[in-house]
Amino acid sequence: MEFTNSITSLFGIHYPIIQAGMVWTSGWRLASAVSNAGGLGLIGSGSMYPDVLRAHIRKGKAATNHPLGVNIPLMYPDIEKHIDIVIEEKVPVVFTSAGNPETWTGVLKEKGIKVVHVVSSSRFARKAEMAGCDAVVAEGFEAGGHNGREETTSMVLIPAVVDAVQIPVIASGGAGRLEHFYDALSTGGASAVLAASLFHYGELSIVQVKDYLRSRGVEVR
Amino acid sequence: MEFTNSITSLFGIHYPIIQAGMVWTSGWRLASAVSNAGGLGLIGSGSMYPDVLRAHIRKGKAATNHPLGVNIPLMYPDIEKHIDIVIEEKVPVVFTSAGNPETWTGVLKEKGIKVVHVVSSSRFARKAEMAGCDAVVAEGFEAGGHNGREETTSMVLIPAVVDAVQIPVIASGGAGRLEHFYDALSTGGASAVLAASLFHYGELSIVQVKDYLRSRGVEVR
Repeated sequence: MEFTNSITSLFGIHYPIIQAGMVWTSGWRLASAVSNAGGLGLIGSGSMYPDVLRAHIRKGKAATNHPLGVNIPLMYPDIEKHIDIVIEEKVPVVFTSAGNPETWTGVLKEKGIKVVHVVSSSRFARKAEMAGCDAVVAEGFEAGGHNGREETTSMVLIPAVVDAVQIPVIASGGAGRLEHFYDALSTGGASAVLAASLFHYGELSIVQVKDYLRSRGVEVR
Repeated sequence: MEFTNSITSLFGIHYPIIQAGMVWTSGWRLASAVSNAGGLGLIGSGSMYPDVLRAHIRKGKAATNHPLGVNIPLMYPDIEKHIDIVIEEKVPVVFTSAGNPETWTGVLKEKGIKVVHVVSSSRFARKAEMAGCDAVVAEGFEAGGHNGREETTSMVLIPAVVDAVQIPVIASGGAGRLEHFYDALSTGGASAVLAASLFHYGELSIVQVKDYLRSRGVEVR
């Protein structure tokens, strides 16, 4: 039987593993490779001019038949152009971060796009849920990027956010070992893990994650 | 069958749960109560003049037949006096922190005292092991106290220290939920958990920890 949960169903992916959108790092090649492997790949738009983002989306879509997403930092100066592009290019999933989820979530969802917002506290998680987001990423202090003045660590943040909202929670920040994936998904209560440097440095393959989850009794294809 | 592992055997305690030595907080009453409940209570010497420490040790020993330890910050100005007192009063377990484990570990171990040093990195863990410590506390950024310039969080630090040394590792820092105890002991690879604020604020009883571990398939008395 295939593994399914709220996140694999939401995105239509095989494994609850999401490759973080990373500035200067995750273009269409990495994102489409992850999506082809059964996870969800994200194109990181933060380092891209609008025309560059559009080119990456088109190349990524040509390289995979699986869902492929885009990460948009809401503080981006040309934010309206990025929003227009993901709508025009019919990107199925958008992860937003570093900004107010109330501003764009409704606009994207009207177009049938799944929206996930990155949060660093239970309070911001509830705000994202109120704004209509389909899920949140609970990003601990261990993560790169802009992740909260409180510096709450993943171990503390993830179960707190899981308790705070009804929508699925994607764990993020410091997931550098297979054990972390397992902890986040089992006792942590998260529905998926978003990882960055593991993909960046090629330290972990989907096959290893799969084998590990299987060794812990999780049924995966 | 009773739960036993390297730490319960080392100290002669029932549960792999240690109450942190806390300045101004953990005197003989709290420490002996924890030891009576089957964990290991620690008297926090950091806020005590030498004669106060001696009085707490004597009262604590009168209040329990179980092992009772003392935490000694090595940066304490009257450190020699504290060392003399724990030797004279035949304290069976000493946790040292905030200093070089090479200075006092040998002295204490010659007297038959079990010595555990608190570390914030794999490098310091190896140093403590080389100094002859019986175990280390891997204390993550989440903890109170002086815990490392690198600010490595518990989730990242604990398995790294477990990999770095052969002696048992006690997990510490941010263990605010039953799930954290389970993660640290199972996938984290630690042999015990040292907790502070849970005991301070009375948010968790040994009975709850026991019930939870039992619910996860760990056999406890």
